[in-house]
Amino acid sequence: MTDTINAFVPGPRIRIDGAQGGPLSGLTFAAKDLFDVAGVPTGGGNHDWARANPIPTRHAWAVQTLLDAGATLIGKTITDEVSLGILGENAFDGTPLNSKAPDRVPGGSSSGSAAAVAAGLCDTALGTDTGGSVRVPASFCGLYGIRPTHGRLNLAGMLPQAPTSDTTGWFARDADTFARVSTVLLGEAPATQLPHTLLIAVDAFGFADPGVATALQPMVERLTRLIGSARDEVMAPPGLSVWARAQRTLQPVEAWNTFRDWVERDNPRMAFGVARGLIAGAQVSAADQGWAELMRQEARGRMAYLLPPGTILCLPTTPFPAPTKGLSLPVLTPLRDRITCLCSQGGLTGVPQVNLPGASVDGVPIGLSIIGGRGSDAMLVAVAQAMAATAVRD
Amino acid sequence: MTDTINAFVPGPRIRIDGAQGGPLSGLTFAAKDLFDVAGVPTGGGNHDWARANPIPTRHAWAVQTLLDAGATLIGKTITDEVSLGILGENAFDGTPLNSKAPDRVPGGSSSGSAAAVAAGLCDTALGTDTGGSVRVPASFCGLYGIRPTHGRLNLAGMLPQAPTSDTTGWFARDADTFARVSTVLLGEAPATQLPHTLLIAVDAFGFADPGVATALQPMVERLTRLIGSARDEVMAPPGLSVWARAQRTLQPVEAWNTFRDWVERDNPRMAFGVARGLIAGAQVSAADQGWAELMRQEARGRMAYLLPPGTILCLPTTPFPAPTKGLSLPVLTPLRDRITCLCSQGGLTGVPQVNLPGASVDGVPIGLSIIGGRGSDAMLVAVAQAMAATAVRD
Repeated sequence: MTDTINAFVPGPRIRIDGAQGGPLSGLTFAAKDLFDVAGVPTGGGNHDWARANPIPTRHAWAVQTLLDAGATLIGKTITDEVSLGILGENAFDGTPLNSKAPDRVPGGSSSGSAAAVAAGLCDTALGTDTGGSVRVPASFCGLYGIRPTHGRLNLAGMLPQAPTSDTTGWFARDADTFARVSTVLLGEAPATQLPHTLLIAVDAFGFADPGVATALQPMVERLTRLIGSARDEVMAPPGLSVWARAQRTLQPVEAWNTFRDWVERDNPRMAFGVARGLIAGAQVSAADQGWAELMRQEARGRMAYLLPPGTILCLPTTPFPAPTKGLSLPVLTPLRDRITCLCSQGGLTGVPQVNLPGASVDGVPIGLSIIGGRGSDAMLVAVAQAMAATAVRD
Repeated sequence: MTDTINAFVPGPRIRIDGAQGGPLSGLTFAAKDLFDVAGVPTGGGNHDWARANPIPTRHAWAVQTLLDAGATLIGKTITDEVSLGILGENAFDGTPLNSKAPDRVPGGSSSGSAAAVAAGLCDTALGTDTGGSVRVPASFCGLYGIRPTHGRLNLAGMLPQAPTSDTTGWFARDADTFARVSTVLLGEAPATQLPHTLLIAVDAFGFADPGVATALQPMVERLTRLIGSARDEVMAPPGLSVWARAQRTLQPVEAWNTFRDWVERDNPRMAFGVARGLIAGAQVSAADQGWAELMRQEARGRMAYLLPPGTILCLPTTPFPAPTKGLSLPVLTPLRDRITCLCSQGGLTGVPQVNLPGASVDGVPIGLSIIGGRGSDAMLVAVAQAMAATAVRD
């Protein structure tokens, strides 16, 4: 079964039992192969990366925290190479299965973690989200998934990409498991009070494929009933594509800084598209970088203005459901750029975002995202639980 | 022995006996893995290339010609990925041995062919030379090697890179074998008359490391005595680096055109530096390309003026002997660019060039090149034979 699903990295499967009697006792989890597990090479999705780096002697903070809480680690999962990729196709390790849409990509870069949870191989799984790497596979695979507030979690032992945007996130199939895991990793129980105001990001809904907005409409209506008060808002007045351009400037610059020494020393093998992404970062001009940093400041101001306590915003997580596997780079690149238009607020502004499953287009999952102000993670988790309860009542 | 030398591509070794009684009877040869051998995948130095392309049903023209002449094919040799590389380090297949300098690179991209001949595994070997891929390994490994006049040989069944610069070349350890093979592949016996005028490319000697010019001095003196009349000349009045810039503009543009469909469709794994080279070709502006085409015209005029019948020019084949293996990209890139400064005349103007072995710096081989006007290949072969005879007499 695992072979068909292709969620785990090649080689012997690891298993580390969680502590007895913790709040996550009885749960199993997997960790994206960017997280250190003591005594196991951190593969990073690139075989030359694994060879170039020492075997870690300590668990990553997130792994240790889940083990301490009683969850059992059952494997390390495939990732796009050094987390550079949003579709989930790895030229070395293959494409993990999107269980709900087997001919489609799972989304990346936390592809194996999403695939493992979606297929029921484990209850939850750690991912990372820099530019959408948890949110996108959550949307594509029909899972709960969170990108927490940037800077909230300890990222020790997690392979970085672009530190000002990097976060640790996680997936679950159901809202209760999602809430249990979130409570442990956030160190905070779901909020007892739901938000009072819902903003509907009209620019984002307008940017998504028409079928997506239609498919998400029932969820938006349920969310509106749940929150009580809703109004339309433009999330990104300069344009989603302008925010995306800023993110697509800053993130590659930082990724190049992160991987440059390795690349220049070892000349590693990587998929052409991954190399192209790194080179894009190396070629950004100081003027473009300076502009992008100013736009990031503006975006942060916008999100702080839009999202005072008690307010959340909803938008389609991705502008379309998962594309088919094996598309060529000239077809994939504009799809990736459209995805970034709905994801860049995370990396630019650090706001937390949760993907809610529950909709589909032609049977292929599509997620609705909720975003709150920085630090409102536990409120978003509470909304996810409340929405799940609503769905059962519907 | 083969394993230590690492000249041949991984997998079962092939052997195809040559025709009986031909002029090359008794000789063995190897073919760079850019040449088709019927029934054998053409690997191209990149494992994803081999998988993406059909197994050829016919031998390449050069392979068939050597077989018809009686030489026996004993293997296919390692090449830099899709011939993009001048050092001879392949991230998939490793670095073929430079027998005369085991800690140094063999030079590329015809690395395995040079290594096989240098180690005595075969008598001759086919290579390709677009920007120096026969001349450089010949210099680094201490071999005879030719880049024939562009357009002279039939390139059917040879994997192209930059068609306006691509040539088929070959290596040999001794001048007589070199002449026998050259007679078959050129379809012309060595000239009976030697040139009457030798030009010494003072810009090229000045550009090489001081130790190189010193090491080559005895060969230049012997060549001068052989030809009778010598004078100093600037080969490239605009600057060797200006010619190199034109070559480094045109060649990557054509390489991108050659490999673009494959790269965009399959997103293949390749060494970062190879991907970077392809991307450089994709990013050349029309203005830069236009300028480079004009400079190529100027260079052709210059070479035609310098090299009327009966005149040859000599220069160091490479500005330094083989560098050590495993250098980082920031160290290798400027070395590569310096090599191009002494090699670009081949790709830009199509003139034939032969590397003559016989000198060394600190025990590491360095070659002296002779260049003639277009079509003078057989004259250069004759000079190589005459120089060898001179060496014996010295």
